Amino acid sequence: MVISATLNTGADVRLAARNNKHTSSTSGLAPSYLQANLIVLPSRYAADFRTLCTRNPVPCPLLAESATVGSFNALKSYIPSISGEKVAADIDIRHDAPRYNIYQESKLAAFEVPDIAAQWTDDHVAFLIGCSYSFETALTEAGLPPRHTVMGRNVPMYRTSVPLCPAGVFTGSTYVVSMRPYRRSDVETVREITRRFVTTHGEPIAWGWEAVRRFGIEDVASPEWGEKPLALDGGDFVDDGDYVPVFWGCGVTPQEAVMRAGLEGTVMGHAPGHMIVLDVTEDEVFGTAKAKINRKLGLTV
Amino acid sequence: MVISATLNTGADVRLAARNNKHTSSTSGLAPSYLQANLIVLPSRYAADFRTLCTRNPVPCPLLAESATVGSFNALKSYIPSISGEKVAADIDIRHDAPRYNIYQESKLAAFEVPDIAAQWTDDHVAFLIGCSYSFETALTEAGLPPRHTVMGRNVPMYRTSVPLCPAGVFTGSTYVVSMRPYRRSDVETVREITRRFVTTHGEPIAWGWEAVRRFGIEDVASPEWGEKPLALDGGDFVDDGDYVPVFWGCGVTPQEAVMRAGLEGTVMGHAPGHMIVLDVTEDEVFGTAKAKINRKLGLTV
Repeated sequence: MVISATLNTGADVRLAARNNKHTSSTSGLAPSYLQANLIVLPSRYAADFRTLCTRNPVPCPLLAESATVGSFNALKSYIPSISGEKVAADIDIRHDAPRYNIYQESKLAAFEVPDIAAQWTDDHVAFLIGCSYSFETALTEAGLPPRHTVMGRNVPMYRTSVPLCPAGVFTGSTYVVSMRPYRRSDVETVREITRRFVTTHGEPIAWGWEAVRRFGIEDVASPEWGEKPLALDGGDFVDDGDYVPVFWGCGVTPQEAVMRAGLEGTVMGHAPGHMIVLDVTEDEVFGTAKAKINRKLGLTV
Repeated sequence: MVISATLNTGADVRLAARNNKHTSSTSGLAPSYLQANLIVLPSRYAADFRTLCTRNPVPCPLLAESATVGSFNALKSYIPSISGEKVAADIDIRHDAPRYNIYQESKLAAFEVPDIAAQWTDDHVAFLIGCSYSFETALTEAGLPPRHTVMGRNVPMYRTSVPLCPAGVFTGSTYVVSMRPYRRSDVETVREITRRFVTTHGEPIAWGWEAVRRFGIEDVASPEWGEKPLALDGGDFVDDGDYVPVFWGCGVTPQEAVMRAGLEGTVMGHAPGHMIVLDVTEDEVFGTAKAKINRKLGLTV
């Protein structure tokens, strides 16, 4: 594994992942470059999956897909005013995530493998879904870094009882959420900062201890993915009258939906945390306050 | 009230509503013309409302809004390839729904009034939201007419415990759903028929008696809006082992969200069932199987 500091752009990370020089989580790599969740499906499920994303844009924000069925090196973009070439040039979807998971007949068949070149067929379609790593940079810049990043841990993720709007074969699934603790008095600021990140889950979908029960989360100390949340002193994260859990839609949702749909054949995804990093930047997709002001003043951004 | 049969187009219905010649429900009027739910908000809430619709497109499918703040006679369209002028020419949002409701400080202040000309200000923004009347025609044409239309009743609508994704001031709200009974054996066909109506709620979000409990609906015989569902023999609609309740996202959802948000000032909406009928047709928005085949063959549709 190379030193992360040398991976400054999306292209850097993709190339390092492709050559198996970077094999771990992409959290914090290539700041400001958009990172993406990956789902690869047999083509007969593609139309229903697009509909699932259209109907559930908060947990399943669709950024791009294979330019044509079977294409692993060219993208069709769903980001307004951004071409597929601009989303990620010279991409190889079979190699450019640091690690992948493989599902056969809707069961996990291989875990954190380095590539999917042997499994990819000319009947597969890849989908890239927005990732909340994007807004974590903005939170940190505003002096509100997510606790898991401060403590060098993975974000906790939970199954909920909140139903997804079904679409074709994708029925019976629910939201997966990520959780970051914040002071109750900071929640409105956190909501405002993350609101503009519309294609990477946007503002939180719930906050407060009462949301844990309402979302059917059995135990906040036992996330289904990622790592257990901690108090700042390293103890358990419990109600101290100050910090509350804040929940966002999570890009693991589409992998859950795929698992629950009983799909036939070979389905692939990135290993959670091991994203495909793109060429397009957060500022290009979401704009910035500075960019907006400059545009208003007629200045070159 | 004029005879419905003479109201063949969206423009016919709008003109009749404007002149108070049609003052009742628009169900079944001007078949194939898109009908729309209406919400009118003070401009300071407009950005948050747009985000609410973007995040919850199934219950809140945004079709169009005022071309500019204060505009009641020109629209900006959100329907791909359809201009605001094509959505509805010569519209007057203050008069063109048969009946309106008016809210002051988030409380219902006037019910089923004929127009909102006196309340409209140059700070108001109108939003048009898709309506499930659109797919009811398609269901009827397929030999699966919704029971409430067959029995000449209003569709039952329910509050649920399914949370909306919050957006800015719009927090704490839940899905409102409409319900149509179908044979369990017909549910997959009903799903397929309604799937393409993406901007008018699309396919159902749940079906089956177990969904009643899961959605937190206390009593299927006591809808919050519309009329109580009945069995085909006029008795109560209960589990007979054959028919099940089928639930769709409902355009009353945004009115609920507005009520729960504690908005200040004057908010207006159509009276439920009393829609604004548009110039654009279902075929123009959703295409048809026939149109698709003709396009494939290079024929003029």
